[in-house]
Amino acid sequence: MTQWSTQHRKAGHALALVPTMGFLHDGHLSLMKEGKHLGDRLVVSIFVNPTQFGPGEDLATYPRNLERDFRLCRETGADAVFTPNTADLYPPGSDTFIFQQKLPNHLCGLSRTGHFQGVMTIVAKLFNIVRPDVAVFGEKDFQQLAVIRRMVKDLNFNIRIVGHPTVRESDGLAMSSRNSKLSPDQRVTAQCLNMALKIAQGSLEKNITDAAILTKNAADFIQSHPETAIDFITICDPDTLENVSKIDKPVLMALAVKVGATRLIDNMILHPNRTPQK
Amino acid sequence: MTQWSTQHRKAGHALALVPTMGFLHDGHLSLMKEGKHLGDRLVVSIFVNPTQFGPGEDLATYPRNLERDFRLCRETGADAVFTPNTADLYPPGSDTFIFQQKLPNHLCGLSRTGHFQGVMTIVAKLFNIVRPDVAVFGEKDFQQLAVIRRMVKDLNFNIRIVGHPTVRESDGLAMSSRNSKLSPDQRVTAQCLNMALKIAQGSLEKNITDAAILTKNAADFIQSHPETAIDFITICDPDTLENVSKIDKPVLMALAVKVGATRLIDNMILHPNRTPQK
Repeated sequence: MTQWSTQHRKAGHALALVPTMGFLHDGHLSLMKEGKHLGDRLVVSIFVNPTQFGPGEDLATYPRNLERDFRLCRETGADAVFTPNTADLYPPGSDTFIFQQKLPNHLCGLSRTGHFQGVMTIVAKLFNIVRPDVAVFGEKDFQQLAVIRRMVKDLNFNIRIVGHPTVRESDGLAMSSRNSKLSPDQRVTAQCLNMALKIAQGSLEKNITDAAILTKNAADFIQSHPETAIDFITICDPDTLENVSKIDKPVLMALAVKVGATRLIDNMILHPNRTPQK
Repeated sequence: MTQWSTQHRKAGHALALVPTMGFLHDGHLSLMKEGKHLGDRLVVSIFVNPTQFGPGEDLATYPRNLERDFRLCRETGADAVFTPNTADLYPPGSDTFIFQQKLPNHLCGLSRTGHFQGVMTIVAKLFNIVRPDVAVFGEKDFQQLAVIRRMVKDLNFNIRIVGHPTVRESDGLAMSSRNSKLSPDQRVTAQCLNMALKIAQGSLEKNITDAAILTKNAADFIQSHPETAIDFITICDPDTLENVSKIDKPVLMALAVKVGATRLIDNMILHPNRTPQK
């Protein structure tokens, strides 16, 4: 990969990287199309990174289909697909990790200890191997995008980070490789994540600006669906991820909900009413 | 710096980096000469990195003389000198750090909590800004060299790390910017660090292979000098830095001693007698 990359960089090509864990869906393909637009050559990495899964999480059952992924990469025009194995990237004796104290201490980081440490470490490794000019990440993993932007700035990576809007199924469900694990009934239930966000946006437009009320309503709505277990529903500052109680500027509403055994996430930027009441 | 570096890299020049905290001495100049030999262009960075100093350490009193440093860099043939300030490298909100669990948990890492975290973070930042092909570090900071080699391997930096032998004063004292802080009497006392290592090598050649005896003798010798306070004297595996009790292969003997208020370090690879007794 490094050789290929060096060769193309020497030829003056701008390289775009889309890091993925495979089992590609239309969300990934959308990131890849953006990558093709942003760079002269597109590299897609496919690696289910063990260091970002905690004990009891779904590393072993994470869906995989490399042959199908290769076909989709080819069809979407990827110039290289990088598929390291775990022993390549974490040989015995590996002991270096990257951490942050602030951003991971919110949202998914609270229930997924060490998750963002694993994410930052693998992304830094991929950046050093591929040396892209630009890398594209989905806004569905909003906290991941924030953590990576912070890391790139703090560690002086000379790489442009581009966030790409969440791609959704026709009923609003955010695309995710994990959606493949839902039963037909759970798949119907899973709509409730995005619906809860839309309901909150509607309430905010009616000048209900108390975050506690909006999250309580969202929780009630989600809990009215079978097989749901809420990890968190949070309204926070999109930059710092610190909780917001009174909404007077755009905020991030983010949630993580287990549907059956499958943990799903979604988020939306909520905009308060543009014409505040006197 | 990034612009300069990109330009030279595009011109096909191999870049060598010598990271320093300034107040340059012959040890640094020796690293720089090695860097000039290894690369087509030599970059010297000068930055007293606050994140590698602990509370109560000598950040505020660390010796500085930038004008003299510039002259020495010029005379030694540096092609660029990079002198960022703290606000450049750690702007408000900085929150990303690099850590290891194993190597820092020995030697200097035990008394200097967070030191190697600060070292790894600044070195990664310098690597990403300068993007050298090769970087040169002194073997005097043996643990630092080991930690950086590990980091480069683990985070897949495509950079060759070269260790350079310790440069010494005529009486054996390892060169260090901190030597400038010693009073004339303390300067004489400071010889005892290197002498203690040489005594241990002599004992080992007489087949005293018990590390506890060698370190005890070294401690007694150092404590017989005025104004000395031992931080540690350790005999360990040069790769893992784990303690060794019976010496049957080359080992690292490392020590840190305060002479007055100034903490000095030194180390030596000790070789057991080549013709072991039956």
